[in-house]
Amino acid sequence: MTSVLAVGSMALDSVETPFGKRDDVLGGSAAYFATAASFLTETRLVAVVGADYPEEALNFLRDRGVKVEGVTRAAGPTFRWRGRYGFDLNDAKTLETQLNVFANFEPVLPKSYLDSEILFLGNIHPQLQSRVLKQATHARLIAADTMNLWISTERAALLNTLKGVHLLFVNDGEARQLSGEHHIVKAARAIQSMGPHTVVIKRGEYGAMLFQGDHVFAAPAFPLPALFDPTGAGDSFAGGFLGRLARADAKSRLDARTLRQAVALGGVMASFTCEAFSFDRLRTLTRQELAHRYGELQRLTVFEDLPSELLTDSAQKASA
Amino acid sequence: MTSVLAVGSMALDSVETPFGKRDDVLGGSAAYFATAASFLTETRLVAVVGADYPEEALNFLRDRGVKVEGVTRAAGPTFRWRGRYGFDLNDAKTLETQLNVFANFEPVLPKSYLDSEILFLGNIHPQLQSRVLKQATHARLIAADTMNLWISTERAALLNTLKGVHLLFVNDGEARQLSGEHHIVKAARAIQSMGPHTVVIKRGEYGAMLFQGDHVFAAPAFPLPALFDPTGAGDSFAGGFLGRLARADAKSRLDARTLRQAVALGGVMASFTCEAFSFDRLRTLTRQELAHRYGELQRLTVFEDLPSELLTDSAQKASA
Repeated sequence: MTSVLAVGSMALDSVETPFGKRDDVLGGSAAYFATAASFLTETRLVAVVGADYPEEALNFLRDRGVKVEGVTRAAGPTFRWRGRYGFDLNDAKTLETQLNVFANFEPVLPKSYLDSEILFLGNIHPQLQSRVLKQATHARLIAADTMNLWISTERAALLNTLKGVHLLFVNDGEARQLSGEHHIVKAARAIQSMGPHTVVIKRGEYGAMLFQGDHVFAAPAFPLPALFDPTGAGDSFAGGFLGRLARADAKSRLDARTLRQAVALGGVMASFTCEAFSFDRLRTLTRQELAHRYGELQRLTVFEDLPSELLTDSAQKASA
Repeated sequence: MTSVLAVGSMALDSVETPFGKRDDVLGGSAAYFATAASFLTETRLVAVVGADYPEEALNFLRDRGVKVEGVTRAAGPTFRWRGRYGFDLNDAKTLETQLNVFANFEPVLPKSYLDSEILFLGNIHPQLQSRVLKQATHARLIAADTMNLWISTERAALLNTLKGVHLLFVNDGEARQLSGEHHIVKAARAIQSMGPHTVVIKRGEYGAMLFQGDHVFAAPAFPLPALFDPTGAGDSFAGGFLGRLARADAKSRLDARTLRQAVALGGVMASFTCEAFSFDRLRTLTRQELAHRYGELQRLTVFEDLPSELLTDSAQKASA
């Protein structure tokens, strides 16, 4: 199977939801991505942590088969994010961001990573994303995430990065902000014209849509009986998604069949992340549970052909 | 096939969207419902119109096989609604409501309607809904719609009506307001405890969910390349939905298979309504077009089983 190279943040998060509060728990886009992808394939991580980042957390990733040779430990404290979710658990309100060692993050790919065919550019400054792109000379599939901050403040750099990106993950709001189109189909089409042939729009509790050329796919979110903490859901989605693609051979990796499975599996992965704070649910999650919920999502969405006589003209006459 | 008895409003709407403006065009919950349902079965309408309601509109309904014996023409002007949609076309802002003849609406079912097995209580005062319920002695499936106004101002009457309702159509916001639960699964469960065994939650551009006992189904909305005017989408959904149920025999009417087809067909019907102002698109719509888009929605949502080796433990070892 193909391994996935991921660049992004590793953080210590402090999160408040209506259901509780946690301080300095594991977070960061790259860490969520790698943990999710590790259920499917080997992930090679490039990130920076501070002197205070727990060795236990790195061991957790190692135990999951994640390669951490590209994770640098720098002097100073780890990147910290503090946020609060309201009753609806949709959008986090960022209360505080301390970049710390992340402010001077200069991603360098170790030689052992250079044969990676699949690259995930987590949500970092678009210029850093571009610099990673240049180093990843063997990458055949480049996927990226971004955020509202870069769309508004670093638009030119972001558009430059997007020219080299095949697959972009964005949420509804980001898609609208980036494209200037409110209507989501038009927004996706506009983003496709910026470079990525494939756009995945994450819609939180409503699910996800995929646009690839003229091909469109939509999957609802798995209806959890209760949400707990959505932090990391988007990166878990991307990890499950690219993990699935990594398990396909290069020829069928971007087939509709594979992409649709990837969207569904990404959504299932994200749903587990939302069930508890930080990585708490992912730590106990099994492949059997993933496979089971994937099947549940299939059964939740399937509907059959209408009876053939239902919409024929003879029926029209009979009812008139 | 079984006919559907529908009670609700017939109106003249004045609508503004970012794409244009129409004055005094056909509208009203019962009219949208009946037009949509008429693609599938006979609908018997109970409503009131004013002296100024165009005869052409009644002929349009008659030509579609809709029974209008229960439509009373009263002295005075027809119910009028004026609304505006912003850029996102999600929620209408009501600019003006003139109840006119609708203020004294007292629905009386003609004798020829009394054998109706399926009843749709459109969005009218819950006390009127209850009075209709008492007259419809042969109704075996009672479906209802409601709105934020009644949930906030006529809660007791609405809860009383709901005790006799089997199937409730609500949108996200109404479900949350009625139940006091933000989380949509919990909201549906709470509404089920109020009477309806089946709850259909309409989520606009995101699609719809159905809850029946422990059975859950989710369908995305059909991704139109462009929305035009969403007025009447909810009632068109209900018309397509109950039209499908009317075409099933009483035994299989509430089977998961039939209900899922009904959600999908309702969504397809609503998507056509959104393509033009008022009934403009429904006037030209054909059953072939409905069947075609239903198939498109199926193809848009289907995803296959994961390869069996993808989430087995041996794969875990191979990646570690």
